[in-house]
Order: sequence, then C-alpha cells, then structure tokens
Amino acid sequence: MESGQSFTDLYVTVQQFYAEQMRMLDDGDFEGYASTFTPDGEFTHTPGRPAARTPAGIVRELEEFHRRFEGRRVQRRHWFNMLGVVDKGDGTIETTMYALVVTTEGERIPEIAPSCVVSDVLAYENGRLRTRSRVVGHDHVRAPDRAAAG
Amino acid sequence: MESGQSFTDLYVTVQQFYAEQMRMLDDGDFEGYASTFTPDGEFTHTPGRPAARTPAGIVRELEEFHRRFEGRRVQRRHWFNMLGVVDKGDGTIETTMYALVVTTEGERIPEIAPSCVVSDVLAYENGRLRTRSRVVGHDHVRAPDRAAAG
Amino acid sequence: MESGQSFTDLYVTVQQFYAEQMRMLDDGDFEGYASTFTPDGEFTHTPGRPAARTPAGIVRELEEFHRRFEGRRVQRRHWFNMLGVVDKGDGTIETTMYALVVTTEGERIPEIAPSCVVSDVLAYENGRLRTRSRVVGHDHVRAPDRAAAG
Repeated sequence: MESGQSFTDLYVTVQQFYAEQMRMLDDGDFEGYASTFTPDGEFTHTPGRPAARTPAGIVRELEEFHRRFEGRRVQRRHWFNMLGVVDKGDGTIETTMYALVVTTEGERIPEIAPSCVVSDVLAYENGRLRTRSRVVGHDHVRAPDRAAAG
Repeated sequence: MESGQSFTDLYVTVQQFYAEQMRMLDDGDFEGYASTFTPDGEFTHTPGRPAARTPAGIVRELEEFHRRFEGRRVQRRHWFNMLGVVDKGDGTIETTMYALVVTTEGERIPEIAPSCVVSDVLAYENGRLRTRSRVVGHDHVRAPDRAAAG
Repeated sequence: MESGQSFTDLYVTVQQFYAEQMRMLDDGDFEGYASTFTPDGEFTHTPGRPAARTPAGIVRELEEFHRRFEGRRVQRRHWFNMLGVVDKGDGTIETTMYALVVTTEGERIPEIAPSCVVSDVLAYENGRLRTRSRVVGHDHVRAPDRAAAG
C-alpha cells in the first residue's frame, strides 16, 4: 500500500487498474497490457502452459495465442469480479477474483467461457500499481491435486 | 468531483449510481431512469439509431423500444462491470465500462447478449450525479470506421 | 456503519465481504459460509422453500442442497454485481445486488443461470460484518404478487 493510502483507496485503485489493464488486452494493445506487469512479471494464462516472463515475453506469448483469431471478426472481453484484496504489508498485494471471457464472433450471441479464478501478486513501482505475477485457473480443467484426491 | 470528494469516493459513488440507475430501468421505471440524466441528457443505446434527448425524450424512446416485450414475461438485467472513471477536472467525469444484458423469458435459461461497451459523461447537478450523455457500442455490430479500415 | 467509517469505506467493505463469503460457498466450505451469518441469521435461497435459520441450520440446508452435485465434477461460482448499499442508521445495512450462478460441469461450457436479485440485511457484530438475512429472488420464478397483478 502506498503511504497515506487506506485499504478503501487500495481496493478502488485495484478495480480501476484492472479495468484499464484488461481493456488494453481486449483492444489488442498487447504492449500496453504487458507494460502493466513489472519488469520481472510472470503471466500464466492457461494451465499446463509455461509462464510468460517479462513484458517482452508476455507480448510474444499474446501474439502467439491470438493467432487463432486471425482473419476472424472476434471481440473478446475479460470480466473480473468478486475481487478480494489482501495487503501483505511487505510491499506486495495479493488479489483473487473470478473471471469470465466474453467472446463475440461476427453477429453471433457471445460465448461466455471459460470460468476462471485469477490469482495476482501486485506491487507499486514508482507510484504505479503493477502485476508481478498472474496465475489463471480454469474451472473446466481438473487441477492435478484434485485429480489425485478424487 | 464534488469539493472534498476523493477519487475513491467518486469511484464508489459512480458504482452506487449505476446500480440504482440500471435497477430502475430493469424494473420498468422509465421515468426514474430518465431522471438520472441531466435536462439536456443524450442517450444512444443502439448503433445507427439517433440519440434520445432530454428525460422526456428518453422516456418516449424506452416506451417504444420496450413494446417488443409486451405480453411476454421478460425480465432484463443490465450488468455493468470493469468500470474506468476519469475526472476531467472541468466538472465532467468520463466513464467507460463493459455491459451485458441478461434476459430471462418465462422459465427459460437467461440469454446473455449483447456484449457492449458503455461510454458516459457524468456531471454533478445540485449535488447529485447525473448522466449527461451515454453511448452504447455493441460488439456484434461492426463500427463504420472499422468496416472502412477492414 | 462502524464509527469513523465513511459510506465509501462501507461500500468497499461490503464488496470485499461478498467476495470472501461467496468464495467460501463456491469452495464447498459451508461452515465458513455459515459463519458469515449472525447467530440468528436467516437464508432463503430458493423461492417457496422455507428459510434456513442459524449458522448450523444453514450448514444443514447447504449439505442437503448440494447432494445433487454428488459424484459429479461441478464447480459453481456466484457472481454478485450492481451492488446498492443503504446504511439504515440503526445498526443495519440493506444491500441489493444482481446475481448469476456460473456452473462448470466437467469440460463443458459453463451454464450461467439463474439470474437473481439478492436482498440482504447486514450488521456489524464485534467489529465484523455479518449477514443477518438473505433473500434470493429468481427471475424465472414469477413472484406471487406479480402473478396476481398480471
């Protein structure tokens, strides 16, 4: 938390941060999205796929991932909700939220999938909030420990 | 922003404002919804359709638009999310958010469509937040400039 | 509202409270979820079904309700949104919000239903926010008074 910032201020700052961060991604501004990560930032968006590292690595990962949409008229929207924020007191902030991806292709009704849980570690750098790490869990992918238990 | 109001206060005020504004619309209280606009307020809810102007004009527009639901048991819910707020410092506030319309007809599973982006200009009038203009973009409608570019 | 707490603080506290409360429910932690209710708390989650009362009664109700998911690989997520908060000034807080239940079964695309309106009465107990009563209305169930009117 920045000095003088209350928990309420922090919570709202995180909400606004996510609105801006994810709009960049949905607008196809991968450079802008990657710039919201710290220089050593990590991004794991799909279970089983290795983390992309550093903003440059995140841009490459997104360019590769988005090749599937080439030549199609697709608009994606990432919805984050049910946000929990924990100030760890060591300069990092842990957040957890639900996420849905809303995908509109052409004139069709949007497909809303998958349902995810996003776990972030955030930190302030030069007075700006940044994502240090992001891990996205997908509800339709059985986690290994659950499979072992079940 | 009102005097003495922090950005955090403003952000939360906008959230509460939208919750109340859209519940009025979803409850069929068109007069109540229109009263959340300024006297010169503009509302463009569908691309290609001219803006409705003034609260009285907005009520007429909504009555006409909702004729399609007459005689049907339909409950609509407008979901706004991923809210970005910018205080312009000139007495106006620009907001951008994602929107989904959740429509339940009879016993059926809700249809969730369309996916939209809402761009508002808000202003305080007599200490109350009001919408001065609202433009709704629909993800399934290709914007003219995109069509020209693509 | 707690002494020294602004409306903005209260609104954010409620958001964080719901994120934590519903994550417990979605993680299958019925004891944790029930502990977010007051000792005399009431929970009516389905129209026509009697209210569950007290945390122990709420746990029993949830165990019974969730038997339908036994032996299936189901992950549910409760999405609350469009939150309205009213501090009644008598130690209670009334909230209203929209809710959607996102259900992922196996590898399938999530089903998003039903669309609901949740009406809560909250209160502080020993400095912690608690739900005193919760009533969930379902959009696909016609309310009796509406049936009479329509």
